[in-house]
Amino acid sequence: MAKKRNIIVGQSGGPTSVINSSLAGVYSNAMERGFHKVYGMLHGVQGLLDEQYVDLSTQIHNELDIELLKRTPSAFLGSCRFKLPEIHEDREIFEKIFEILNRLEIDSFIYIGGNDSMDTIKKLSDYGTITGQPQKFLGVPKTIDNDLALTDHTPGFGSAAKYIGASTKEIIRDALGLTYHKPMITIIEVMGRNAGWLTGATALAKTEECEGPDLIYLPEADFDLEKCTKKVRALLKKKESIVIAVSEGIHLADGRYVCELSGGADYVDAFGHKQLQGTAAYLAGYFASEIGCKTRSVEFSTLQRSASHMASRVDIDEAFMVGGAAVKSADEGDTGKMIVIDRVSDDPYMSSAGIYDVHRIANEEKLVPREWMNREADYVTKDFVDYVKPLIQGDYQPIMVNGLPRHLVLDTKRKR
Amino acid sequence: MAKKRNIIVGQSGGPTSVINSSLAGVYSNAMERGFHKVYGMLHGVQGLLDEQYVDLSTQIHNELDIELLKRTPSAFLGSCRFKLPEIHEDREIFEKIFEILNRLEIDSFIYIGGNDSMDTIKKLSDYGTITGQPQKFLGVPKTIDNDLALTDHTPGFGSAAKYIGASTKEIIRDALGLTYHKPMITIIEVMGRNAGWLTGATALAKTEECEGPDLIYLPEADFDLEKCTKKVRALLKKKESIVIAVSEGIHLADGRYVCELSGGADYVDAFGHKQLQGTAAYLAGYFASEIGCKTRSVEFSTLQRSASHMASRVDIDEAFMVGGAAVKSADEGDTGKMIVIDRVSDDPYMSSAGIYDVHRIANEEKLVPREWMNREADYVTKDFVDYVKPLIQGDYQPIMVNGLPRHLVLDTKRKR
Repeated sequence: MAKKRNIIVGQSGGPTSVINSSLAGVYSNAMERGFHKVYGMLHGVQGLLDEQYVDLSTQIHNELDIELLKRTPSAFLGSCRFKLPEIHEDREIFEKIFEILNRLEIDSFIYIGGNDSMDTIKKLSDYGTITGQPQKFLGVPKTIDNDLALTDHTPGFGSAAKYIGASTKEIIRDALGLTYHKPMITIIEVMGRNAGWLTGATALAKTEECEGPDLIYLPEADFDLEKCTKKVRALLKKKESIVIAVSEGIHLADGRYVCELSGGADYVDAFGHKQLQGTAAYLAGYFASEIGCKTRSVEFSTLQRSASHMASRVDIDEAFMVGGAAVKSADEGDTGKMIVIDRVSDDPYMSSAGIYDVHRIANEEKLVPREWMNREADYVTKDFVDYVKPLIQGDYQPIMVNGLPRHLVLDTKRKR
Repeated sequence: MAKKRNIIVGQSGGPTSVINSSLAGVYSNAMERGFHKVYGMLHGVQGLLDEQYVDLSTQIHNELDIELLKRTPSAFLGSCRFKLPEIHEDREIFEKIFEILNRLEIDSFIYIGGNDSMDTIKKLSDYGTITGQPQKFLGVPKTIDNDLALTDHTPGFGSAAKYIGASTKEIIRDALGLTYHKPMITIIEVMGRNAGWLTGATALAKTEECEGPDLIYLPEADFDLEKCTKKVRALLKKKESIVIAVSEGIHLADGRYVCELSGGADYVDAFGHKQLQGTAAYLAGYFASEIGCKTRSVEFSTLQRSASHMASRVDIDEAFMVGGAAVKSADEGDTGKMIVIDRVSDDPYMSSAGIYDVHRIANEEKLVPREWMNREADYVTKDFVDYVKPLIQGDYQPIMVNGLPRHLVLDTKRKR
């Protein structure tokens, strides 16, 4: 009797609107290819080490469930932030993982995540090669931040950009309706500690019937508060409603984050990263007292990565595609690789899945190139917008039940 | 030759997702009834006094424009916050308004707004009656806050509630995906200074596949920080992700707003109202230091009143209905009245337009009744949810252009 070929898949890192579409892609393709079982690690490798996993056939019963999964935000399987040690530091943890994989008769291990997840793929495939294990290890990219190198863009970015573009349009409209003989400055704060891709996406709001934001500040350039104030004053001579988009990570030339200027207590998260919240609130307070007009701040916060009700069809489809492509590659014998998205053509937009050796993926962040910002570094260029626009096209209508979008969620009673 | 019968319509106060659907209702019904022209005041009565108005036929060209208008957030005509003086205080301002109305051959004056707007309708109709003017004055209600008396609910509330319900579900999902051996408290801040209707709407997230928020605090009851902390500690023993919804207006028994506890500078707006922002951020900081776990805060901010991409069909249709009903009533000779929504039946849900004398509308706020909160006043009851649920049903799909919802906006080149 031939050995059973099973697959295990996990999700890791910060969630996106479409990380579950990649999961759906993995599941569907694995079923098509005749894999026996598709297991899902609960909370990634961390959960796997606790023997937390599900047989996905107990969760996904039919094609409607696949459609719901594509429209469900956050990690269906649960996520983790867990970095494997170097192999020579702690072989035991690797032994434990492979013991579980062998016990579950795993043929292929697919991990959907960002840079840290690709590091996991690299270490596991290295360990497998060194110790002569049969498993193949493939990575599927995701991150709203779009800061992964080698791939044209990351699944999750397009949907976040679409939500940001749509919400920016609505906020601009709201402000225009309110201002009459009473100027107002609106500051929108967008995620992105070092990379300004999402903040730049506010420029998408500039459409036939909307002027878009007036100023856009990315973290790639130093922020000059004095120069910005001067610009705002000049703008207020021409119009009553000013909308400024800022990245949470904008900082002065001396390196201080703008959100630190308020003098509030620093909140450092478990990874030692300073929490960057309050940039827009700080600037709103600053302009209110400096310029003396009405101001308000809006933080897109968690919703920019979880608003699947405004996800992009291109993004959902590509997320599904890269999930399926990982299974295909594993099935064809690849290991230690990450699936990437290649842009085949700009207009008409076409993309396909490519593949890269995870060893070639340095831990570098892909930032917005300087030439995609204007000279003053207070807006993005047409090239930036042309790059993002294809990624926000089309929709998957939410499946509405009783007036709200329905999600597919883990049925913990059927975990095994 | 018969005198021309023209209508003028204005929008006032804080915008909603569906205030333009009422405008569309006014326009469509007026056209049906053979009114000659429909003028729109730009920025309400304040703009009218500056002779700022448009002939709406220069803006709405066809039925597609009506559909776009129904899906456009914020006040298409621009809003204002302008309170007319008492008649005996300043007759001049009334004379000026009626001079303009008579010059434009206005038969009916429709004002879409909240309590202040109904005050405008009352004063103008009183002045008209006193001085024997021919115009009729009708009010159309709107406010996301749902705090107007006499009407079962207000247009705008249902869509805000739907957005809040959908976003709360997405935030809860996001948090569940992230927590594993690392508890997290999420605090969601919702609009509503005195009325908790919108905050209560987070309970809509409690659905077949979602537990909903764990605690909900409305401004109608005093907030007890110690008791809340105790509840949170108890919850953390049972689950890892706690989601708490709070109104921006929650306050301690001694009257202090929770957002004031941070000791930051008060920001008082043009109407002398303290700006109530930062309640969730304060509580997130408090729980982080008091309980020592990860916390995060989310403010729905402006989007809860401007996210037309998640508007409710029932709400858009009712907003359209009350706009049309105002024209019908004016056409039939009514004046000094406000259109209201009567709930004809709960299940199946049915509503119709009613009418009230604006003199009967006191400046009282309709608050969430105590019996629609649980005993501890940290959740809403089934009666509350049963009341709100019909109002969030159905959708108008946004009309997407290039990946983003299209809006109808004022063409200022065609103002006359």
